[in-house]
Amino acid sequence: MGTGAGRPSKDRNVSAAALVFPERGGAFWLFDAGEGTQHQLMRTPLKLNKLEAVFITHLHGDHLFGLPGLLSSRSYHEGAGDLPLFGPPGIKSFLDAVFAITGTHLEYRLDIREAVAGPIWDDGTWSVRCAPLDHRIPCLGYRIEERDRPGRLDSERARQLGVPFGPLFGALKRGEDVELPDGTIVRSRDVVGPPIKGRVVTLLGDTKPCPEAVLLAEGADLLVHEATFAAGMEEKAAKYGHSTTGQAAETAKKAGAKRLVMTHFSHRYRMEDLASLENEARKVFPETVAACDLKAIDIPFRSE
Amino acid sequence: MGTGAGRPSKDRNVSAAALVFPERGGAFWLFDAGEGTQHQLMRTPLKLNKLEAVFITHLHGDHLFGLPGLLSSRSYHEGAGDLPLFGPPGIKSFLDAVFAITGTHLEYRLDIREAVAGPIWDDGTWSVRCAPLDHRIPCLGYRIEERDRPGRLDSERARQLGVPFGPLFGALKRGEDVELPDGTIVRSRDVVGPPIKGRVVTLLGDTKPCPEAVLLAEGADLLVHEATFAAGMEEKAAKYGHSTTGQAAETAKKAGAKRLVMTHFSHRYRMEDLASLENEARKVFPETVAACDLKAIDIPFRSE
Repeated sequence: MGTGAGRPSKDRNVSAAALVFPERGGAFWLFDAGEGTQHQLMRTPLKLNKLEAVFITHLHGDHLFGLPGLLSSRSYHEGAGDLPLFGPPGIKSFLDAVFAITGTHLEYRLDIREAVAGPIWDDGTWSVRCAPLDHRIPCLGYRIEERDRPGRLDSERARQLGVPFGPLFGALKRGEDVELPDGTIVRSRDVVGPPIKGRVVTLLGDTKPCPEAVLLAEGADLLVHEATFAAGMEEKAAKYGHSTTGQAAETAKKAGAKRLVMTHFSHRYRMEDLASLENEARKVFPETVAACDLKAIDIPFRSE
Repeated sequence: MGTGAGRPSKDRNVSAAALVFPERGGAFWLFDAGEGTQHQLMRTPLKLNKLEAVFITHLHGDHLFGLPGLLSSRSYHEGAGDLPLFGPPGIKSFLDAVFAITGTHLEYRLDIREAVAGPIWDDGTWSVRCAPLDHRIPCLGYRIEERDRPGRLDSERARQLGVPFGPLFGALKRGEDVELPDGTIVRSRDVVGPPIKGRVVTLLGDTKPCPEAVLLAEGADLLVHEATFAAGMEEKAAKYGHSTTGQAAETAKKAGAKRLVMTHFSHRYRMEDLASLENEARKVFPETVAACDLKAIDIPFRSE
C-alpha cells in the first residue's frame, strides 16, 4: 500500500502492506498503516470489512498515522466484525488517547494485543510469531507461516489400484492407508505425493541488520525488508536504525529466503532510481525486487 | 483540500481548506486537516514551509487525523518557521499525546493556542476571531477580516492638478492633502478614490444553524459553510449536529454574505449530485457554489 519512508511523496505513500488471501474472498491482513493507507485501499479491490487483522511494527508516525482514520472508516462498512490488532507496547495507549480525545466510537470490537516476542496467532491454517528488531524504538518483525497441506492424490493411479470413487479417496488424501472390499491394502504414500509445503512470509518493520531478522526470515518464501538507503550509506542507515539495499540482501541470503522484496525507500529516491537499488541488492541476493505502491506480489506454493 | 464528511471517498477527501495569500508568494493558512491533507497539498503548488498558521474547528477525526503527519512532514521543509496553531480546548493534549507516544520531534516551534471565542490573530493586515458553533462537540467558526486599503490614486488627475511625480503622490495616496510649490493645495479626496474595503472570509466548522454562525458571517465576501445533507433531511442533520444545503443558504442570507461555498458533503453524494445540492441552496441564496477538492475560489476586492 505504501513503500516510502518518513513522509509521503508523489511516488510513494508511507508504510503499509496488505497480505491478501485470495482463497478467502478478498480477506486480508494489514501490516502498518501510515497516513493515507485507507486512501490507498480505495485504489484496490480490498474492502475494510474484509480486513481480519492488523499488525503494527512500531509506533513511528509514518507507520501509524493512518490507523485511527482507517479503523474509524471500517465502522461504516457493513459486516465489519471483531478486529484483532497487534503491536508493540504503547499501541493501546495511542489508540485510546486518540479515540478518547476525538470522541471516536467504533461499531465493532477492536481487540488490541500488545506483543513483544513469540507466537501471537494460530487459526489452524496460518500462524504468526513476532520478534524484536533493532530500530531506534521498539520495533517488531512478523513471520507468517502456513500449515503444510496434504500432497496431491494421483487419482488415476488410485483407480488402477482398484480404489472405488468415494470416501476412500478422501482417506488416502488425508494420509490414511485403506483396505479395499477384496482385502487389498492401498497405502496412502503410494498414491499421494509429498505434503505441499506451507508458505512462509516474513514482514519486518524498520531495522538495522540483526540476528532476529535472519531468524524470522529463515527459509521464507518471501521476505519483505526495509531498504531505506542505497548501498554505501551504511553509516547513515545505522545512525537512524535503518538498512541499506545491500544489508537487506545480506539478511535474505543469510536466512536462506527464497525472495526478497525491498520497501521503505527514502524520500530521496524516485521511481527511476528503483532499478539501481534493485541491482545493488541483486549482487548479493539475485531474487530481489523493489516494491511499488499498490503492486501485488504472488506467493505461489513451492514446487518441491 | 477536502470537502467530504466523515471519511474519504473517491470523489472527496475529508475536511481541510487552505486560505492562500497570492500577494505573499504562496503563503497560506490551513483550516482543519483531515487524513490525507498533506497528500492533497502535494497536488497543489502549496508548500508546507509557506504554511503560516493552522486553525482547527473541532476535534472530530475527519477534521484532525491528518494534522500529526502534516506537522511532522513540515519539519522536512527548509525554512519552515514557527507555526501558530489554533483550536478548541483538547487540541494540545491530542498533539502532545500523539507526538509523545510516536516519538515525533518537530524541527520548528509549534505554538498551540486553545481558543473558545474572541479575537485570536492580528498581523496588521489580517485579523481573525472565532466563536463557538452548535455541533455535537465544541466546534469553532473563524472570521478572517482584512484591513481596508487606501483608495486608488487617479495619477492622471493628480498630474493635471500639477502634482509633480515623487513623494507627494504617496502622501495623497495615504490620505494626506498636499501643498504644491506654487502654494496650491491638492486634496487627497479629489484624486484618491474611496478606501478599498478589506475582504472578509468566514470559515465555519460543523454546525447546526445557530446565531453565532450568522454573526461570524455578517457581510462576509465569502462564507464557507458545511452542508452535510440535502434539503429535506433537516431532522437527520439536527441529530448529528449538521446542516442541510437549505440551512447553509439561510445562514448566508441572514448574514448578508456575498457568496456561499458549501462543503463537507455526506459520503452518499457523488460528484454528479453536487448540481442538485447547489440548486437547492440557490433557491434561498443564489450566489452559492458546492466546493470540490482542490478547486480554488478567488475572493476579489469588492467593487463599491
